[in-house]
Amino acid sequence: MNFTEEYSKRLNEFEGYLRQFASELVTYPEMLYNAVSYGLLSGGKRLRPLLLLEAVRMFGGVVDASAVNFALAIECIHTYSLIHDDLPCMDNDDFRRGQPTCHKKFGEAAAVLAGDTLLNLAYELIFSAIALRDRQENYVRAGIAIAAAAGGNGMVGGQACELAAESEQSIDYIYSHKTGALIRAALKAGALIANTSRENAEKIEKFGELFGYCFQLRDDLLDKGGEDEGKITYLQAHGEEGTAAALKSKTVEALEILATVENAEFLTELTANFMEREA
Amino acid sequence: MNFTEEYSKRLNEFEGYLRQFASELVTYPEMLYNAVSYGLLSGGKRLRPLLLLEAVRMFGGVVDASAVNFALAIECIHTYSLIHDDLPCMDNDDFRRGQPTCHKKFGEAAAVLAGDTLLNLAYELIFSAIALRDRQENYVRAGIAIAAAAGGNGMVGGQACELAAESEQSIDYIYSHKTGALIRAALKAGALIANTSRENAEKIEKFGELFGYCFQLRDDLLDKGGEDEGKITYLQAHGEEGTAAALKSKTVEALEILATVENAEFLTELTANFMEREA
Repeated sequence: MNFTEEYSKRLNEFEGYLRQFASELVTYPEMLYNAVSYGLLSGGKRLRPLLLLEAVRMFGGVVDASAVNFALAIECIHTYSLIHDDLPCMDNDDFRRGQPTCHKKFGEAAAVLAGDTLLNLAYELIFSAIALRDRQENYVRAGIAIAAAAGGNGMVGGQACELAAESEQSIDYIYSHKTGALIRAALKAGALIANTSRENAEKIEKFGELFGYCFQLRDDLLDKGGEDEGKITYLQAHGEEGTAAALKSKTVEALEILATVENAEFLTELTANFMEREA
Repeated sequence: MNFTEEYSKRLNEFEGYLRQFASELVTYPEMLYNAVSYGLLSGGKRLRPLLLLEAVRMFGGVVDASAVNFALAIECIHTYSLIHDDLPCMDNDDFRRGQPTCHKKFGEAAAVLAGDTLLNLAYELIFSAIALRDRQENYVRAGIAIAAAAGGNGMVGGQACELAAESEQSIDYIYSHKTGALIRAALKAGALIANTSRENAEKIEKFGELFGYCFQLRDDLLDKGGEDEGKITYLQAHGEEGTAAALKSKTVEALEILATVENAEFLTELTANFMEREA
C-alpha cells in the first residue's frame, strides 16, 4: 500500500461527503450558516472520521450512509471543539491552519453559536444514522460512546482540566481526555458499527487511547502549543528527550496491539506516519 | 384538579430526579462539575421537562426511566442555552433568577464548557434512554426531533437571528425558534414516547408552537427583556395592546386544539395559568 496515496484518496472522499453535507445544511440566519460551514470546510487531516471509517472497514463492516453519518458527526464534534477552544476566554487564538479563527472572522457570539450548532448537528446525524437501521442496538451504543467521550468526563473535561491545571499530575488526564477520548470513541464507534467481537473492540479502543496520547506528544515536539505559555505540557515536564522516549515507547505499544488484529495494515502505516509527521 | 398544587407536586418530583442525576454526574475537574450543577440546580419552572412528561401521560404512555431521561435531557439543553445566552458576547447578563450567572460565578471559560458539557450530557441521556428499550424506533425519532429543535434550524437559529436581527420581520422567526422550537419538541418527544397516533402528535406539536409563542409574548408583557434594549420584540413593534391581543388570540387557538385532544385537562389549566402569570 502506498499510504500517502491511500490517505489522500480517503481524505478526498470524506471531503466530498462533507461538502455535500454542508451544502444541504439548513441554518438561519446567513451569518450562522457561514460560520458553521467556514468551520467545517477549513481543511485539516480529518483524522477522527477516517479512523472511524477504517475501523468499520477493517472489522468487516460496510461504509454505507449510516457509517458516513457517524463519520460526519465526529468531525462536527471535533470542529465545534476547535471553535470554542479558540475563543478569547479559552485559548484566545487568532489563527488556525493559517486562517482567521471563527470568532475573528464572524465575531464571538457567532462562534459560540456555530459551535453549539455543530454539536447539535452531530447528534442529529447520529440519530438519523440509527434511524436508517433495522437492528439499532450497536448504533445506539456507538452514540453513547461518542457522547460520553465528547462531554465532561471526556474531551470537555480535558479542556477544563487544561484551563485549570496547576500541576504536572494533570498531564495524563488532559492528554488522555482532551485529545484521546474522541479518537478512542471514533474507533470504538467504528467497531460497534461493524458489529465486531468484544475482543476486537477492546483492542482497538486501547490502540486509540495510545494513539491519541502519542498524537498529543508529537504535537508537543512540533511545538504546536508553543504560544500557549500558561499550559502544562509533557514537553515542559519531561523535556524533549523524555517526550521523544515516551512517544516511541507508546507508539511501539500501539503497534503491538495492531499486530494482533486482522486487516490492520492501514492503521499500522497511519500510526508510523503520524508519529513521524512534521505538521 | 387544583392546578397549582398539581404543578408543584410534579415540579418537586422532577427536582428530585434532577438532584439525583446531578449527584451521580461524573465530570472533572471540580470547577466544571460545580458550574454544571450550579446551572442545573438553580430552580426555574422546569416547563419543558414537565411538558414532555405530561405528553407521555396524556397519550397513555408510562413515565419510566426512559421518559425521565428524556425529560432530564431537555432540561439540560434548556440550561446550556441559558448559560451560553448569558455570556458577555451574547446577552451579557450578570444575574438570572436573582443569582449570579454562570460566567459571573465561575468565569467565562467555565461557562462555555459547562454549556458544552450539558449539551453532550443531554444526548448521552437520550442514547441511554433509547438503549433501555426493546423497540427503539420512536425513541430515536424523539431524539431526532429534539436535536433538530435545539440546533441551527431551531433554538440556536433563533438565538443567532435575535443577535443579528435588523427588522421586525424577524420577530416571527425568533419567537417560534428561540423559544418555540424546544417547547414543541418536548411535546412531540412525549407523544412519540407514548407511541400515540400521528394525528395526536401533530395536534400537540401545533399546540406547542402556539404555546411557545404565547410564552414569549407574556414575557414581553412582563417586560422581561426590558434590559436588552438592542433586541427587537413584538412589544416594541406592536405595543402593549397589540401584544396583549396577539397573546389572547393565540391562547384561544391553543386551547381550541386542546379541546380536541383527550386527557388535556392539565395542559389546559397550564396554558391558562401561564398566559396570566406574573413572573
